[in-house]
Amino acid sequence: MNAPQRILVVGSVALDSIRTPYGEVTEALGGSASYFSCSASHFSPVSMVAVVGEDFPEEHRDLFRSRGVDVTGLETARGRTFRWRGEYAADLGHAHTLETQLNVFADFHPRLNDAHRTTPYVFLANIDPELQLEVLDQIKRPALTLSDTMNYWIARQPDRVFEVLRRVDIALLNEEEARALAGETHLARAAEKLVAEGANAVIIKKGEHGALYHSRDERFITPAYPVTALVDPTGAGDSFAGGFIGMLARMGRTDGEALRQAMACGTAMASLAIESFSPQRLVGTQTGEIEGRVRSLHEMVHYDLFKMF
Amino acid sequence: MNAPQRILVVGSVALDSIRTPYGEVTEALGGSASYFSCSASHFSPVSMVAVVGEDFPEEHRDLFRSRGVDVTGLETARGRTFRWRGEYAADLGHAHTLETQLNVFADFHPRLNDAHRTTPYVFLANIDPELQLEVLDQIKRPALTLSDTMNYWIARQPDRVFEVLRRVDIALLNEEEARALAGETHLARAAEKLVAEGANAVIIKKGEHGALYHSRDERFITPAYPVTALVDPTGAGDSFAGGFIGMLARMGRTDGEALRQAMACGTAMASLAIESFSPQRLVGTQTGEIEGRVRSLHEMVHYDLFKMF
Repeated sequence: MNAPQRILVVGSVALDSIRTPYGEVTEALGGSASYFSCSASHFSPVSMVAVVGEDFPEEHRDLFRSRGVDVTGLETARGRTFRWRGEYAADLGHAHTLETQLNVFADFHPRLNDAHRTTPYVFLANIDPELQLEVLDQIKRPALTLSDTMNYWIARQPDRVFEVLRRVDIALLNEEEARALAGETHLARAAEKLVAEGANAVIIKKGEHGALYHSRDERFITPAYPVTALVDPTGAGDSFAGGFIGMLARMGRTDGEALRQAMACGTAMASLAIESFSPQRLVGTQTGEIEGRVRSLHEMVHYDLFKMF
Repeated sequence: MNAPQRILVVGSVALDSIRTPYGEVTEALGGSASYFSCSASHFSPVSMVAVVGEDFPEEHRDLFRSRGVDVTGLETARGRTFRWRGEYAADLGHAHTLETQLNVFADFHPRLNDAHRTTPYVFLANIDPELQLEVLDQIKRPALTLSDTMNYWIARQPDRVFEVLRRVDIALLNEEEARALAGETHLARAAEKLVAEGANAVIIKKGEHGALYHSRDERFITPAYPVTALVDPTGAGDSFAGGFIGMLARMGRTDGEALRQAMACGTAMASLAIESFSPQRLVGTQTGEIEGRVRSLHEMVHYDLFKMF
């Protein structure tokens, strides 16, 4: 096995106040780059580009360091850290945003140093597609680029979101985002349409129904890990992204065989993330536990084909 | 390979008038036993117990015979055949019933002859749970029993539905039925609860999200076949049941390895059923096409586990 390759993540670091049917937290560590880093760093080294305010607790920065995350790109700007307040209803399907304070995140423009620009694996977390395109303009010959987005951008700047989809290797979308962007309710057709309109490959995240990978040549499906101790769904998508690109970077591979196992790694990390508030559970997990969940996922779909007729 | 074992189905034969966004039919062959037989008979011989009226077109009976179905248990009663009229909205998710004429089906009590009673594989299609229990009282030492139900019975006779679940080997439910019967929205927990309350095993059908098998010892997931030429979702569940129990009866096996492949066979048959109105597409398909879909399904989930850490 080659040495694990480095991953660059550009996204948000936030302080989240969240209520779910299973409890609540106030100003806990959140944000796409936080969940992603705590997930991906179990597989490969991570460099983070994000911004926080002067009030950002040093303990959170220490937590990133404890996971070996390179935080030289975690800028401290004048002002307060990005804050999000939300709650989930009984089915935990959708976050209901109660308050968003962009604060220092409002003026965020990712500044990449030379090391960042040549990082081989790149995750563009859910930020303004204009900023994602700025990052794509700055990076050099990456091995793999992965993007995320959200309905907010699809509703306001669908053309820019599509531009990102055409430029990255793989785009992550949840069900609703895929349907909205494709203008098609049937998921299999939505995935086809996104690829027909120029996306190289998409991964559609379906929550408890798992995730599907769709490109011109490959179609692959992974179930969700059956979590019954669900606490807070926040960060599931970013944790999936972390396990997915983390495993690819660890193997130094981007072929079909590798991405199948990477999907299972992403699924395992998402299942851990939602068992606690904040990236707490992701930080506390061990490689043995991750491997155990990946094996369970494999076991849940695997069978040998018998002769039928 | 042993000789394929015979399957008994007890269910409905109907004349359906259906409108979907892709077309409509008037008084076309429908009913759970019809879809099931046209599906299962590709794998193993089928005996049907059902009732029709004096107006039932002989061509439909001939169609069953052309599939090798034993129709000696297809009783003709005085009166008109069961009729159902329904339509589907754009997302094809739920049938909206416009009219139900039970006709001869109102007084249906399954009459099993000696051959029926000793048939090794048995499918109790969606009928009154009291009738399903009557059938279970009549059959002798079956190798495998499979049941179906619907929200109508769950709302009116949940205890009787549960009684069926406890007595059959495997119970088929769709997502909404599983949630309603378990009183639990989270599907993984709903499946666990049904088994905890006495079901031997359940298969939860999730439409375009595939199906999951859950018993005390086994958990298995199969994706849906990505149909893009969807015409009419009617009969998908019964066609799934046909492919599932059909393959088990063909192999003469009911172990975990066999049921995994059987789930894929069920999925393949459901995907064919929804590509036409009536069981037309099921009747017209060939073993090569079925096998091709099963292979695709296998390919969509299969991968070899690499060493991770």
